[in-house]
Order: sequence, then C-alpha cells, then structure tokens
Amino acid sequence: MSRLVMKFGGTSVADLDKIRNVACHVRREVEAGHQVAVTVSAMSGKTNELVDWVRSMPVLANRNAPFFDAREYDAVVASGEQVTAGLLAIALQSMGVDARSWLGWQIPVRTDAAHGSARIENIDGAEIIKRFGGGQVAVVAGFQGIGPDNRIATLGRGGSDTSAVALATALEADRCDIYTDVDGVYTTDPRIEPKAKRLGKISFEEMLEMASLGAKVLQVRSVELAMVHGMPVFVRSSFDDPESIDSSPGATPPGTLICSEDEIVEQQIVTGIAYAKDEAQVSLRRVSDKPGIAAAVFGPLADANVNVDMIVQNVSEDGSVTDMTFTVPNGDLEKAVAVIEKSREEIGYQVLQSDPGMVKVSVIGIGMRSHAGVASTAFKTLSEHGVNIRAITTSEIKISILIDADYAELAVRALHSVYGLDK
Amino acid sequence: MSRLVMKFGGTSVADLDKIRNVACHVRREVEAGHQVAVTVSAMSGKTNELVDWVRSMPVLANRNAPFFDAREYDAVVASGEQVTAGLLAIALQSMGVDARSWLGWQIPVRTDAAHGSARIENIDGAEIIKRFGGGQVAVVAGFQGIGPDNRIATLGRGGSDTSAVALATALEADRCDIYTDVDGVYTTDPRIEPKAKRLGKISFEEMLEMASLGAKVLQVRSVELAMVHGMPVFVRSSFDDPESIDSSPGATPPGTLICSEDEIVEQQIVTGIAYAKDEAQVSLRRVSDKPGIAAAVFGPLADANVNVDMIVQNVSEDGSVTDMTFTVPNGDLEKAVAVIEKSREEIGYQVLQSDPGMVKVSVIGIGMRSHAGVASTAFKTLSEHGVNIRAITTSEIKISILIDADYAELAVRALHSVYGLDK
Repeated sequence: MSRLVMKFGGTSVADLDKIRNVACHVRREVEAGHQVAVTVSAMSGKTNELVDWVRSMPVLANRNAPFFDAREYDAVVASGEQVTAGLLAIALQSMGVDARSWLGWQIPVRTDAAHGSARIENIDGAEIIKRFGGGQVAVVAGFQGIGPDNRIATLGRGGSDTSAVALATALEADRCDIYTDVDGVYTTDPRIEPKAKRLGKISFEEMLEMASLGAKVLQVRSVELAMVHGMPVFVRSSFDDPESIDSSPGATPPGTLICSEDEIVEQQIVTGIAYAKDEAQVSLRRVSDKPGIAAAVFGPLADANVNVDMIVQNVSEDGSVTDMTFTVPNGDLEKAVAVIEKSREEIGYQVLQSDPGMVKVSVIGIGMRSHAGVASTAFKTLSEHGVNIRAITTSEIKISILIDADYAELAVRALHSVYGLDK
Repeated sequence: MSRLVMKFGGTSVADLDKIRNVACHVRREVEAGHQVAVTVSAMSGKTNELVDWVRSMPVLANRNAPFFDAREYDAVVASGEQVTAGLLAIALQSMGVDARSWLGWQIPVRTDAAHGSARIENIDGAEIIKRFGGGQVAVVAGFQGIGPDNRIATLGRGGSDTSAVALATALEADRCDIYTDVDGVYTTDPRIEPKAKRLGKISFEEMLEMASLGAKVLQVRSVELAMVHGMPVFVRSSFDDPESIDSSPGATPPGTLICSEDEIVEQQIVTGIAYAKDEAQVSLRRVSDKPGIAAAVFGPLADANVNVDMIVQNVSEDGSVTDMTFTVPNGDLEKAVAVIEKSREEIGYQVLQSDPGMVKVSVIGIGMRSHAGVASTAFKTLSEHGVNIRAITTSEIKISILIDADYAELAVRALHSVYGLDK
C-alpha cells in the first residue's frame, strides 16, 4: 500500500460531470489499495468571477484607485475551492467511498501573513493521517490556509500545485499526482514539433529549468518544493478514462514522473528543448570596463521593477571598454530603456541598442554535466540552419541561446532532432 | 450612542450595486454615532444554485435515492454568505468605514450537531464588542456557525433572521434591524385590503401570532428568540434611499418596531388580521365519546408526519357520541384521510368528511385579554356578510375562524374594517 496526494485543477472540476469523473479517478486509486488525499481548485471560471467582484466592489468615488483589503479578498475567493471540495466529497460518498472535505483552517494549513499571496509555513497532517487508517479519503480545498490572524489566507493565483506538493510532504505521501489537461511533460512543445515525445521521467533540476523557461505544465514553486523534500511528482491527464488505467503496484500509467536524478536509470544527455517568447534585447556598446559598472546598470533596473533575465558581458580586449547585453520581457523594454538613458552619465556607455523581437531557446539535460560537446553541437546545428545567435548563457544543466523570433520554430525543431529526441 | 445589529436578506444584496446600497445604509448608522454589526445572506439565487449542485452531485447510479452528507452540504452552501460578507466589508472600507468580515467559525457561533438545520447554542461576542470600541463595523456571514465537530453548520434555509436576533443578543445590542423588501408589518395583507396600515409598534406575542399565521415578514423562530431575550426588532425596507433617512437618536424612521407590550403606550384592542390559505378540513361524525379518542386520532397522524393545526371537539349532548374536526395543510389531506380510514375500528366513527378548500382567518390583539366582546364582534360581522363559519379556535390574544376559501378576501376586509384598522 502506498499513500497518494491527487491534485485536480480548475478545468478538471469545471462542472458536475467533470467532478464525477474526478471521483472515478479517486475511487480507482482507493480500490487499488492506496491511501488518498485529493486537493482541488475552484470550478473553472469561478475564481475569475470572484476576483472580478472583489475588484469592482469599491464604490464609484474610489474606483479610479482600486482598493481592497487582501484579507477580504481571501475570504471571498477561497469560497470557490470550498464548494468544489464539498461537492467532490459528496460524489465520492455516493460511490461508496468514505470521504470528507477539509478547508484550510480545519486541517489547519498555517501560512504567513501575506494575504492574497501567502506561503505555507506548516501543515498539520496528523488528523488526516489518522483517518487514512480507517480508510477515509481527505478532500482538501486547495489554494488556501489560515494566517497568523486566524483569517483565511490564499496562496495567490496558481498556488494550487504548490499546496498539493506541500500537502504530500506533510502527509508523508509516496507520490503527488498532478492531474492536468496534458498527459505529461514533453521533450519540447508538441505544437511546434509534432515529433515531441512524452518523457517517462525527468529530474527535479531539469523540470525546474523546463518550468521556468516556459513549459507551462507545473508551477516553478511546486517543483522547487518537491525537489527540496524529494517528493516524486507525477504529471498526468485528468481526461483519460478513469476506468481504463491500471493503478496497481508496479504499473506504469501514462504520464511523466518528476523525481530525483538517482531514480532515472537511462539518463539522456539532453532531456528537452524549451523556449520563451517575447524577450527583448538591450545592448550597451563601449562601456568603460571599470568596477561597479554592473551595479550601475542593474541597480536602477531593479529599483524600477524591471525583470532582467540573461546577462552577457565579454571580457574586454584591452581592459578599457566592453559591450554588455541583457534581456527583459518585451513589456518592460520601454521602461528599461528609459532607466538606462537616465543613467547614461553614471554608466558611461557610447551607444544604446534595443530589439524587441527575440526568443530564448534552451537545451536542458542533467547529462550535460558529464558530457562535453553538448553546447558546440547546438551552435553548429543552428549555424547550419542559418540561425544567427545573439547571445548565449549557460548553467550546469542548461544552454540558453537568444535568437530572432522568426527562427524560433526552426531552431527548436533542429535542436530537438540533433539531440535524438525525435526517436 | 446605541448598538445596532442590521440584517440584510438575499434580495437586499442581490448584486454589487445592491451591496453598495447596503453599505450606504450602514454608513448612515455609523455616522449617526451607532456601534454596528451587519449580518448578511447570500446573494439572491446563490443559495439555490449551491443547493441544486449538492442535490444533483451524487453519481447517476444512486440518483434515484438522493443522498448527501449534511456536513458537506453545509461546507458548500455556507460559501454564499462568505462571499457577501467579504464584498460588503470591501464596499464599506472604500467609503472610509472601518469594517471586517466574520465567518461563523471565526466569531465563533457555536451550534448543535444538526448540520443543515442547526440551532445556535452560543455566540462569543467579546472580540466584536472590543472592536466596537475602536469604531470597527463587524460584517457577519449569516446563516452559519460551527458545530461540535469543528465543521461549518448552517442554520437551515431562512435561518438568517434568527441568527441576526441571536447575534444582537450576544452583542448586547439595543436593537436588531431587519431590512427586507417590505417596509414593515401591516394590519393585514395590503394585496387583499389596500387600506391596510403599517403598524408603528407591535408586541412580540402579537407578532408571533402574525408570523405563524402567514404574515411572512419574519421567521417565527426569530420572533420567539427576540421575545425570550426582550430584544427589540425593527422591520424596515432596504430599498428606501439610504441618505434620506434620519437615524439620529429620537428619530422615527419608517418601519415597525416589535417590542415588549409595556413599550406600546396606545395599545389597540385588535392589532391585525392574518390569514392562512390552503387549509383542509377533516371531520369525524358520531365518534364514541370515550377517553383516549383524541390520542387514537392524532397519534397515527403524528406518526405519519401530518401537521395538524386547528382541533375542535364539542362536548357531546348525552356523553355517548360527538363530532371532531381538525385542519391540515391541503398537501397532507390525502395522507391524513388514509391514516384515519385505516384507524376506523380503533377510533369508532360513523362518517368521515373532508374538504380541501379552506382558509383560516385570525384576529390578533393583546387588547383582547382585557376587552370582552372581541370574538362576538367577529362572528356578527362575518354573519352580516354571509360568511359561513366552519370552525373556531381561540387563544388569549387570537381568534381563528375557518371559512370557505371563496370568502377569504371578503372576511379579511370586513374584519379589518370593523376593528377600526382602516383608520
């Protein structure tokens, strides 16, 4: 027997029929002998409706300066998950599965005081674990806890993956299953490369790079949390027929397991190709190469809340001037340029260039650590396809390359092929 | 300075604009110097939607035998008031009124274990009273508390008047204002008698008779509770312009105050005429007049959950046989007749008659206690108008008369006039 946390998002519980379908998934796991806690989001669209109400609630006179108390926002918005949890418990009971709903304050899920975007500090799993012994399924309202002020605190939009992983950790689960509208993590975006393959397994580190680079399957925070606690996360589809899946011990249902490196026996050198659109490039030409220049550039940008991604600075030839390039989201470009122009004196550059139409393509794989030549293969491949490389950054398990947006699909497909991911 | 509880039902908070209007009512009272707690229902239609979801949630196989866990019902349905309370707090804050929402479990409002139709056992008003000192308005989600199992318990449909009065008692309020879609309690139904007048004051006892006899302004339980605790209840309209009402001490805004008899200086002999439609009459003729007959008739009816209202039994002429008449709701008539026919042997009656088209008209007034002739005036008036009296029951402050439904309006108008209520 193993212990599972199953997480279903808003599209998986969008209406009563979909909630019944979720109940079938849960029953299957219970009948396979697992102890189960389920965590659910609000019915699709509900949270948006509630958030709209909160935003438009302040009276007309003050509506130009929208104002609302985040604690009241939380009381209103958390009701969405409360409804789904109660309904799923009823559906399970009607199938003969012992179940009860748990709201954040009942467990309790203790959070910090940051209402509206709280972080979980502690989950008391004792009572739920005790009831596992009696065969009861815990249906947990996701996305919420209780703050130090004893009021409902929500984890911020999209915090439900993270609360599922945190719950799995608190309940000492063997695995956290994230049911979503895709059936796993792919070697790249199948809309760009139809030959993309679903990965059977991927390491936490690789998934972290995939998630933060735009493979929008899982929230970055949830992967971080899973990695810290070594909690295996299984990404799978909630739209598969619940009855046709084999959940017995040793079976391998369709999906991608995110786990620690050691558990991946046949490690590929490269695991996947990710990309991030809507990047803008900013280059400062002939910057005086003296200490404190990086601080002079990036301090004011940080103060202006500009999110800088790649940073490239070459070693200057003669120690006097150098070039510096960085990327920001397209939406921040105007602000970034204004900040840099204002700091022209302090920084001391000659020319400021910017270009909004960029894409960042990344090659990800833990195998890179021990295999040389991965980067040079990428550069050679792109060159052969006539793709001009604007900038390069690397980490231990990732190579990111900035290119013109027009070449994005071509580059993704070429890299996907050259690393053998098509096979 | 006085302390007020203000209660707004679902139609008064049906949309964001109506919630803003409620906020204006609350601000007016705060600016008049009162300490205020507001209790709100779910937005009109919300509770029905949630209840429908709960009812239709059980899976198909079991849908013929609807089943749901009342504790899950409560978790789902209580979310409606949670949303309204949060939104109203936001509206008040945006008007510069310090306010916070309170859910049942936060106060806490402790109830018994009867999920779905719980009774309040205790309300801890200490924290809210403390915050009154700092000028904070408490916005309380109505209709809910927390059961002995630490789970949300709802008070059953329409329990919101009752929770408002209970809250007023716990907070030691000076008055409980029930805002509704009518502007007070009338001498009779204005749809039947356009000359009906709004009562300035009415005693608890009279209101109890009015409420239980079909004047659907207030829930019976809320009036009982107000009477027990001597809590004055003020029934008023939520659709009056919030700005045009004078709430200063000594002002008399439009509405009806329900209070103890002593506070009503100019006591009328008759306060109002109530009526109840859809009554059915059942008569047993020539019943053997022996001990235990009443038990033989009404025991089986009670077992069958038939709600018996009026009961009339005459003293028999010679001590051998008598007639017995009682009324039941039209919907229960068939069941009642079947029960009585089955018990024919035990009861020992000769003829069973029933008639569904009845109306009960009641004359109510505390002044009856000290004034003779009230009843005979009623009988004489009905007789002069050609209304045939089927049965009569009386209490200390009420005379109820069963008549044919066709004569209902005529009888109500004639009685309304003869007791001087038109003036």
